[in-house]
Amino acid sequence: MQEVGICGSDVHYWTHGRIGDFIVKAPMVLGHEASGIVSELGQGVTSLKVGDRVAIEPGVPCRMCNYCKTGRYNLCLDMKFCATPPYHGNLARYYVHDADFCFKLPDHVSLEEGALLEPLSVGVHATNRAGVGLGSTVLICGAGPIGLVNILTAKAKGASVVCVTDIDESRLQKAKELGADYTVKVTSRDAQQTAQLVEEAMGEKPDITIECSGAPSSLQTAIYATKSGGVVVLVGLGQEHVEMPVVNAGVREVDIRGIFRYVNCYPTALAMVASGKVNVKPLITHKFKLEESIKAFEAAKRGEGIKIMITCTRN
Amino acid sequence: MQEVGICGSDVHYWTHGRIGDFIVKAPMVLGHEASGIVSELGQGVTSLKVGDRVAIEPGVPCRMCNYCKTGRYNLCLDMKFCATPPYHGNLARYYVHDADFCFKLPDHVSLEEGALLEPLSVGVHATNRAGVGLGSTVLICGAGPIGLVNILTAKAKGASVVCVTDIDESRLQKAKELGADYTVKVTSRDAQQTAQLVEEAMGEKPDITIECSGAPSSLQTAIYATKSGGVVVLVGLGQEHVEMPVVNAGVREVDIRGIFRYVNCYPTALAMVASGKVNVKPLITHKFKLEESIKAFEAAKRGEGIKIMITCTRN
Amino acid sequence: MQEVGICGSDVHYWTHGRIGDFIVKAPMVLGHEASGIVSELGQGVTSLKVGDRVAIEPGVPCRMCNYCKTGRYNLCLDMKFCATPPYHGNLARYYVHDADFCFKLPDHVSLEEGALLEPLSVGVHATNRAGVGLGSTVLICGAGPIGLVNILTAKAKGASVVCVTDIDESRLQKAKELGADYTVKVTSRDAQQTAQLVEEAMGEKPDITIECSGAPSSLQTAIYATKSGGVVVLVGLGQEHVEMPVVNAGVREVDIRGIFRYVNCYPTALAMVASGKVNVKPLITHKFKLEESIKAFEAAKRGEGIKIMITCTRN
Amino acid sequence: MQEVGICGSDVHYWTHGRIGDFIVKAPMVLGHEASGIVSELGQGVTSLKVGDRVAIEPGVPCRMCNYCKTGRYNLCLDMKFCATPPYHGNLARYYVHDADFCFKLPDHVSLEEGALLEPLSVGVHATNRAGVGLGSTVLICGAGPIGLVNILTAKAKGASVVCVTDIDESRLQKAKELGADYTVKVTSRDAQQTAQLVEEAMGEKPDITIECSGAPSSLQTAIYATKSGGVVVLVGLGQEHVEMPVVNAGVREVDIRGIFRYVNCYPTALAMVASGKVNVKPLITHKFKLEESIKAFEAAKRGEGIKIMITCTRN
Repeated sequence: MQEVGICGSDVHYWTHGRIGDFIVKAPMVLGHEASGIVSELGQGVTSLKVGDRVAIEPGVPCRMCNYCKTGRYNLCLDMKFCATPPYHGNLARYYVHDADFCFKLPDHVSLEEGALLEPLSVGVHATNRAGVGLGSTVLICGAGPIGLVNILTAKAKGASVVCVTDIDESRLQKAKELGADYTVKVTSRDAQQTAQLVEEAMGEKPDITIECSGAPSSLQTAIYATKSGGVVVLVGLGQEHVEMPVVNAGVREVDIRGIFRYVNCYPTALAMVASGKVNVKPLITHKFKLEESIKAFEAAKRGEGIKIMITCTRN
Repeated sequence: MQEVGICGSDVHYWTHGRIGDFIVKAPMVLGHEASGIVSELGQGVTSLKVGDRVAIEPGVPCRMCNYCKTGRYNLCLDMKFCATPPYHGNLARYYVHDADFCFKLPDHVSLEEGALLEPLSVGVHATNRAGVGLGSTVLICGAGPIGLVNILTAKAKGASVVCVTDIDESRLQKAKELGADYTVKVTSRDAQQTAQLVEEAMGEKPDITIECSGAPSSLQTAIYATKSGGVVVLVGLGQEHVEMPVVNAGVREVDIRGIFRYVNCYPTALAMVASGKVNVKPLITHKFKLEESIKAFEAAKRGEGIKIMITCTRN
Repeated sequence: MQEVGICGSDVHYWTHGRIGDFIVKAPMVLGHEASGIVSELGQGVTSLKVGDRVAIEPGVPCRMCNYCKTGRYNLCLDMKFCATPPYHGNLARYYVHDADFCFKLPDHVSLEEGALLEPLSVGVHATNRAGVGLGSTVLICGAGPIGLVNILTAKAKGASVVCVTDIDESRLQKAKELGADYTVKVTSRDAQQTAQLVEEAMGEKPDITIECSGAPSSLQTAIYATKSGGVVVLVGLGQEHVEMPVVNAGVREVDIRGIFRYVNCYPTALAMVASGKVNVKPLITHKFKLEESIKAFEAAKRGEGIKIMITCTRN
Repeated sequence: MQEVGICGSDVHYWTHGRIGDFIVKAPMVLGHEASGIVSELGQGVTSLKVGDRVAIEPGVPCRMCNYCKTGRYNLCLDMKFCATPPYHGNLARYYVHDADFCFKLPDHVSLEEGALLEPLSVGVHATNRAGVGLGSTVLICGAGPIGLVNILTAKAKGASVVCVTDIDESRLQKAKELGADYTVKVTSRDAQQTAQLVEEAMGEKPDITIECSGAPSSLQTAIYATKSGGVVVLVGLGQEHVEMPVVNAGVREVDIRGIFRYVNCYPTALAMVASGKVNVKPLITHKFKLEESIKAFEAAKRGEGIKIMITCTRN
């Protein structure tokens, strides 16, 4: 591997040893936001050659179940996903991966950008599920890394107005830099009140809300804020159960859709970056060497910056 | 009007004077499940003639807002809907209605069947929103009138397996008579346990769950019971807020969709009945004359039978 | 293999040695409409066991290209499909096939029915592409075996009216027996005139037309006959180029969609048969033993009956 | 009216007196690409006020038929459309129009841009029907005004690669200026050869082809050039019948979809312009006063420039 970004889930496994039902029972290499250079080819591989620079889509599904056959391989129950136990991640010098989940980078796309295709794919999947398109008005709740990639993706799809909420002013500032038209600082857990502030900022309710914070009050805001007939996509997830305004959502036909990782999004994410539609470089705020990984994880744990990148090449 | 069915909402307005924000502030005629015979034509109407027997789609939208123009007129904010205050219903001898919301019945379809197109349209809309199709496996929670029309509609769309839950054995019996392949009697508020019973009955999780009971534990069951990548449609609605297993729904991409009445469903409902695909007659268990309306409403209030029909013609 | 149906393409390879660019260059076993009994398991197969009765979906795709990953594996360029050169078919006593393309039959579904899932899947795919649903009005052009499975499938999906055209009265009779509501005997190559006859028979233009004949005038009829905003699906294909009324189709937004085999249709086809929604048995008009295959092919070449089935077991 | 653009159909009515079945039988005002300033309000209109600057969506449907109710009002048979006989157009100082088809322009959007929402809406509808989205690769055949608005719209929707064909080098130059990544000059009527040139230019077949020329050989190229499983949208239409490669389109599941004007596209077109996603101003190459209309039409007839605009205000 050449470049590997640190994700919140990596930090969570590092500190807690588990995420939900996924429990680390044996030493496990972390990392799943990676790019690298092909050093050896498996038998029969013709789509790549040694020396190719590639982005790694980190999950390889079974290819045989109904989900795999119907184009929803992210739901495959036999998925082997980097750094989801018991499978090793790719924060390492060398890593073996199926060739069809390696996406060759054009010369003008850097390996760092290649690694960033992973979080960007989350934005692609979330906005696909949301149905963001030309002229959409979009609310994004939460301006962390995933909120930010959703701004980039929504804008690249033609959203005409994007509003972002967060409890942190500096994150909202970053959201503005990356293209948010409006920001709303959340200061209350009163979901209807926040929804009202959003409506005032945007001039009308958004067609679509992409909830990236996982905060219960924000999930509620997402429902109240969204236009009747609209869509709420749940990206950020925190506590298992949340009291939801189901009557409000139901009678206004506001659909609620979750996402699990991404599916068939790497080609789109790569096309976005390669065609210059989005610039993901501002997301990288820290760089470390593989030998400094502990320092990198400590910085990530402290919530520093946006995206921390680890370079795995031997210099 | 000739035939008017009594709906739970009619009874609710009668007894409580309001449903949510809709408050009865002046005397209001009830009734919205109606059919009748054309006695007079408005100026310029050519699609109907005096004597035509018609089913009445009870809501007339503004025809000018975005919802009306994009095919979702049920979400129109300026909808005039029978027996939703301040608009009168059609439990009356004569009623004026827009011609394009009157659907002419073929000779072999009775006026009673015409009145039943209203609840049947709820089933058409719910199964449309759910995406029920050929080979779908469907769970329907709640075997009241709306649960029953969903059985009929799901089967007519080619669902291969339909399972129904309820807390009442006699309602489950009716569900079986109308086509349910499996029934599960709910005896606990443990949503995951009920979901487990459903999976055991069906042999696998259903693709789709249509929740018609409105009970919080049943809403939760709907999520747990549904296959990853599936859909839950919320039809029955009770309390405003419900604690929902959002992580379970989110990471398994189980979509949650509400419905508000129906849109463009009367033609389909009529085609179902006219072509003999469904037999709605067994739904009618009681018949009253207009003069006996109080008795009819009292029976409805006691929860008797399935569908109570009031005949409005002067004999 | 236990039961193998003969398809027009088998007869075409037998008599012409090629279909379009697919040329038979070496001896090739025919047959792709097959069912069988598992006699041996490959390493790691757990979904089946020896003795299981299975239907065989005859094409195995590469599982790695974009088409495979996005749920359209029928378009995979590296598909290995039975009896499409250079791959052998399964008109043989034994045949090796990927386990996930073998669909276990319930006890009450016969091996003959299992073999018929292949043509039935064509009907499932065609009606999927067409968007046939509850209340659809459907025209099916051509009452050969593929036209007939489309009648069965359209009806199972809830089509309220199905009209069938053909030049042969006895085939139209068969169409009626299988569920067609109306039939129109085609006696002219004037496409608009035939479309007019269809409209008169159905009382209005159909929402959807499924063209199964491949005759140029019938392709034209399909366009003219279909309602504005409707869909024409091209199933039957004959000559490479056909003069099409593109302005009529274009300005009326009548979509034209082809099909290539089927994709993810076997589970649905099996559910249809297993749940009793359709009865495919009347399609079988002739039965032969494997040793009589030449006789069977000669009968097929003469156009006898509907579906000719060859039993491959040693008695 | 303030600004009215001249469309090819205006010129055609002016010179031929008919388009297809639409025949000019009485003197008819031309013009349907218009914007204006509200000078008087109809009874009950509250969405606008005198002095508002508005873009005019030129067709008003019946609001009552199935097409109107299902969100496809462009197919309404009782559409009153500006300058489609027998209805007058709006190339005039004053014009009466339904308020809900007048779209208020924000202060920073000019009346000229407002008039250009009409051709832009054609691009929005065509790319909607095509399913252009983030990362799409798109071929646009024909670089006239409609080809150009399709470039703008496809890019605004996130298309990563757009290739344009034309027989005229100067039009291709304009296409490049407006965002085309590649251009191919068509020099032959051999459709497969042109498709080959497109594939060479783009590096692969496009996902989507939008045919805006109406030339028969270009319609054929559109089929051959498009990726299997892709979509061809027919925008330009010339001769009634065209010999189409139906087998190629059919077995590769290349869908063929027409468009008729646009539906629900003005809000999107306005959002594109208002948010700065597209700059339509370069489309205007000529300006005339209402008194110079004959000169304007003569210039249009000679094929000068891209878009000719007539100012209707009395100076």
